[in-house]
Amino acid sequence: MKQRFLHSIAKDDALRLWLAAFSGREAATEVLPVSRTLERITATPVVARESSPHYAASAMDGIAVEAKDTIGAAPGRPCRLELQSNCFAVDTGDPMPPGTDAVIMIENVVLVGTSCDIEQGVAPWQNVRPVGEDIIAGEILLPRYHCLSPVDLGALLAAGVHSIAVLAKPRVTIIPTGDELVLPGTPLQRGDIVEFNSAIIAAEISLWGGEPLVYAPVPDDAGVLQRVVEQAIRASDMVLIIAGSSTGRGDYTADVVEQVGEILVHGVAMRPGKPVMLAKAGLVPVVGLPGYPVSAHHCLETFVKPLLYAFNHRPLPKTEMVDGLLTRRLVSPFGVEEFVRVAVGQVEGQVVVTPLARGAGIVSSLMRSDGTVIVPQSAEGFAEGASVRVHLRKPLAEISGSLVCIGSHDLVLDVLADYMRLRYDLCLQASHVGSMGGLLSLKRKFAHLCTTHLLDEETGEYNTAFIKRMFPGEDMVAINLVERWQGFMCRVGTGVKSWQDLRAVRFINRQRGSGTRVLLDYHLHKYGLESSAINGYLREETTHLAVACAVANGSAEVGLGILSAANAFGLDFVPICLEQFDIVMRRATLHDPRIQALLSIIRSAEFASRVGELGGYATNKSGEVVWTGNA
Amino acid sequence: MKQRFLHSIAKDDALRLWLAAFSGREAATEVLPVSRTLERITATPVVARESSPHYAASAMDGIAVEAKDTIGAAPGRPCRLELQSNCFAVDTGDPMPPGTDAVIMIENVVLVGTSCDIEQGVAPWQNVRPVGEDIIAGEILLPRYHCLSPVDLGALLAAGVHSIAVLAKPRVTIIPTGDELVLPGTPLQRGDIVEFNSAIIAAEISLWGGEPLVYAPVPDDAGVLQRVVEQAIRASDMVLIIAGSSTGRGDYTADVVEQVGEILVHGVAMRPGKPVMLAKAGLVPVVGLPGYPVSAHHCLETFVKPLLYAFNHRPLPKTEMVDGLLTRRLVSPFGVEEFVRVAVGQVEGQVVVTPLARGAGIVSSLMRSDGTVIVPQSAEGFAEGASVRVHLRKPLAEISGSLVCIGSHDLVLDVLADYMRLRYDLCLQASHVGSMGGLLSLKRKFAHLCTTHLLDEETGEYNTAFIKRMFPGEDMVAINLVERWQGFMCRVGTGVKSWQDLRAVRFINRQRGSGTRVLLDYHLHKYGLESSAINGYLREETTHLAVACAVANGSAEVGLGILSAANAFGLDFVPICLEQFDIVMRRATLHDPRIQALLSIIRSAEFASRVGELGGYATNKSGEVVWTGNA
Repeated sequence: MKQRFLHSIAKDDALRLWLAAFSGREAATEVLPVSRTLERITATPVVARESSPHYAASAMDGIAVEAKDTIGAAPGRPCRLELQSNCFAVDTGDPMPPGTDAVIMIENVVLVGTSCDIEQGVAPWQNVRPVGEDIIAGEILLPRYHCLSPVDLGALLAAGVHSIAVLAKPRVTIIPTGDELVLPGTPLQRGDIVEFNSAIIAAEISLWGGEPLVYAPVPDDAGVLQRVVEQAIRASDMVLIIAGSSTGRGDYTADVVEQVGEILVHGVAMRPGKPVMLAKAGLVPVVGLPGYPVSAHHCLETFVKPLLYAFNHRPLPKTEMVDGLLTRRLVSPFGVEEFVRVAVGQVEGQVVVTPLARGAGIVSSLMRSDGTVIVPQSAEGFAEGASVRVHLRKPLAEISGSLVCIGSHDLVLDVLADYMRLRYDLCLQASHVGSMGGLLSLKRKFAHLCTTHLLDEETGEYNTAFIKRMFPGEDMVAINLVERWQGFMCRVGTGVKSWQDLRAVRFINRQRGSGTRVLLDYHLHKYGLESSAINGYLREETTHLAVACAVANGSAEVGLGILSAANAFGLDFVPICLEQFDIVMRRATLHDPRIQALLSIIRSAEFASRVGELGGYATNKSGEVVWTGNA
Repeated sequence: MKQRFLHSIAKDDALRLWLAAFSGREAATEVLPVSRTLERITATPVVARESSPHYAASAMDGIAVEAKDTIGAAPGRPCRLELQSNCFAVDTGDPMPPGTDAVIMIENVVLVGTSCDIEQGVAPWQNVRPVGEDIIAGEILLPRYHCLSPVDLGALLAAGVHSIAVLAKPRVTIIPTGDELVLPGTPLQRGDIVEFNSAIIAAEISLWGGEPLVYAPVPDDAGVLQRVVEQAIRASDMVLIIAGSSTGRGDYTADVVEQVGEILVHGVAMRPGKPVMLAKAGLVPVVGLPGYPVSAHHCLETFVKPLLYAFNHRPLPKTEMVDGLLTRRLVSPFGVEEFVRVAVGQVEGQVVVTPLARGAGIVSSLMRSDGTVIVPQSAEGFAEGASVRVHLRKPLAEISGSLVCIGSHDLVLDVLADYMRLRYDLCLQASHVGSMGGLLSLKRKFAHLCTTHLLDEETGEYNTAFIKRMFPGEDMVAINLVERWQGFMCRVGTGVKSWQDLRAVRFINRQRGSGTRVLLDYHLHKYGLESSAINGYLREETTHLAVACAVANGSAEVGLGILSAANAFGLDFVPICLEQFDIVMRRATLHDPRIQALLSIIRSAEFASRVGELGGYATNKSGEVVWTGNA
């Protein structure tokens, strides 16, 4: 186990050093037919070969004449010209007949047999498009390093230019490393890791104007890796090595790169992506990316994207920014610049920003992120409610149109969101923090609506008591989404039938504040069971599916949840009760046309039918206002 | 000549009607391997097939144990476990060995031979990535109608999803029509028009998410056109017919479309693009686009782009807007919504907006435009200096970095602009309005600098007198760009040798306010020639190349201009004088680093050398401050 010291420098310093190392680079070029140059970059100024129009052309439908023949013509004193002799009918775009130099609008000509009476003289070149009116042969049409748009292609063809020199796309070779990697589609064994990093990286490279080439995964063998890297350097404009840049067992990347080039930076004071390695082999940049997908992606955006844009002589596209309110505290270590992926919503004009899971291995957090909040090196985070700046990944316009729903988790919400897209092209952004979290988010106006199924121990009623307590004096409304069966989700054959049976098995719990946890505690109390008697009471998951997944994988034997989640993992399901799963919002929100769309879906037969297919639901009360009033 | 009545409706009404006509459209779908779905649109929600991680994995390098074996361990009272018996070395990502449920960091373990002393107990599942920590099999990963990004592809592969259903790209068939059309690359005859419209349209369609298919040009024959259109409708999701939608001879498009479908709109109160025709054949939209490229493109953006985005269930990308000062008056007819292409610059923080040529046939105006100003139906234009809103075609950031140079035209400016790109990745935006226009633009701060070569009749000196007169009290500086030969550019064999010879030939002039015009008038006066004695004195062009082009094409026999322009068209050149071509700016502008870059180029040997190759220039004084002072 070789320990390598990672010297951390600030990200901005690393980037400056990195870009400067390749600033003098000479770009390769290639000559392509114009039809294949869309969004490519010109390598030289482009000169027009032909003028357009390439002949003097009539600019309108009319009669072509020699202007001097019309001198003196006036209303009542026309001059008469003979068709096909000294005047000629022409349409727009027709070449001027020999000897003519002007066109008279057809409306101003009186036809008399084969003669034309003209009552208004015309100046030479009037109503004629001269040669080169649009483009003149020899003029510079496009400058060097210009990104070709559709109209550019048309103008080039109009100017008789059929092929041009463009910058060759920088060839970026991507080398995944690690014995544990298997290609997507391989039947998975325990310990296999699907090699999906290269798919992300290759796609980004191509969007950024590079030409990606992905190698097969290289095993953890320094000799093999060195041969592969040497080969890649010879054939590429940039080489990216995935994983092995850290300091663990089998992290050979730095050793190998030291053999073939010069390491400029190893370790940057940022998170994710700290162990990134930036090197130079001859004129070829070589990057050691961390193996975790979130880290790899962040390093890619930070160091590879700007270099690719520089290679293509293109300015980096500006990131859209927005300031928003942080919905929860964000803690970050001092001395490290941290990039936190966030979800962004807009509720009543206020932009709300919620940090997503920060694990470097959580690729779904990348997928779900609307943008990034940067915690500077000198800060230890931000307080809840602080105003933070978000670097957006999607246009704000797309985000601000979404209806934000926070609260309890149910698969029915996916059905609802899908109908919102399908029928109204609307986006329902649902996030799952449990029933209590949902009500709190609604209270703070972080959401338009929340989902909740909180059983009141005293009244045995759902939700009402909680709403009254949390929204005193506010005008609220609760609408039933569905009723659903809660029950024990067990591995087949576990034999849990009653609450008492829970003492004999490994349990997995839901998080505090979730309706399902409230339901559990209600029943434990009712049946006189101590939580300490339940093995696994302290082990929490945040969704029905996560609990079902843990049970299916054998790390627990039973959990409390809904039938559809149990079905998704082929688990036994022992029903306990049919509970009320409601949507809560301020009454004023009902006027939002998006809410009207939502309600019309909830009340539709096709919604009931699709929910019915999931199993474990009743939709008799769906869309019914179950409670309303000045809370 | 059939006259068809075009009923003009407002653009917004036409668009509403048009989009509504296809609102219920069912999209076709196709199933593709994930690797080929970048930037495609999901056709259904996408469900995870595998959990990720798919096995419980160590979250760090360390020792895997069963947590209950470590109960009671404390510093000084370690518990001892045996490697390969009840504890196991694991690296990050390794599967948890059977029977273990927690990992202890390697730093907190003391190795004693094959034993491990553990001084701190650990809770079950600590430092373990549970199955599904990232993605849980069965959860919805992506909603319907989602545009797939690089990270989405990675997440899908991580979730065991290898192919998905996406919306089929709408197939858009493009049918150019007209007997005069020839394909790009065909040797041109008088009257031939290069068919480049379809190249622009196809490229836009593909950027907007469609699948373009371009037909060969169809001759002006209603029967042939009808067969072609019927075939296209059967095979397409949208059909675009270029030209023939107007009311001239050979405009059959409307007749044909009436046979195969229903015309919804024919004629819209907008310019360019008034004769556009919007129709529906079964479920297929059919558009008759005008034949002029600027009109065709505007109709495409107005009616085809929003429909394509609707077909793909994507929101139209928001156009960046900026308000700026109009550098000249913009007149527009009442009752028509006019879309005027403009050049945009930024000078001393002020955005300046200059209308470009408005001819519907001027494709170069499309190419050069930075954006569009809309003159509403109810307005007759805007005054010079008015604040207007520009719908930008390029990011403002790109535009605002450009150095704006307005004034006299010389090919050397292209060389200068090219070196600015090549050496500094800077953009020099040069526009040609003549010397006087340049000084006026500088005066009004529409430009950072101007180019001028104005000969003062009294002093025989260049520029100084004009600067003093126009910038009283301002601190100005003039720097020589080049000296250049002016002369007669003549068709070979014309035999013009002296000013007196001008009376015997067809002349072509430059516009008032240009330095070359001043030079002409200076010499006419000097040699006692009346302007009325010059045939063609009133015919004006605005650049040296345009004058040379007219001479080369025989519409004139001689013009005044520079050697490089004469050379570009193989004309004879009779030198008259070596004149001073200067750059003028406010002295404060010298501090702009872009100006410093400019000057270092002008003073470089490579600039002198490349200018030398053009012929007709002297660079002895290039970069020299020829005049300075508080004007």
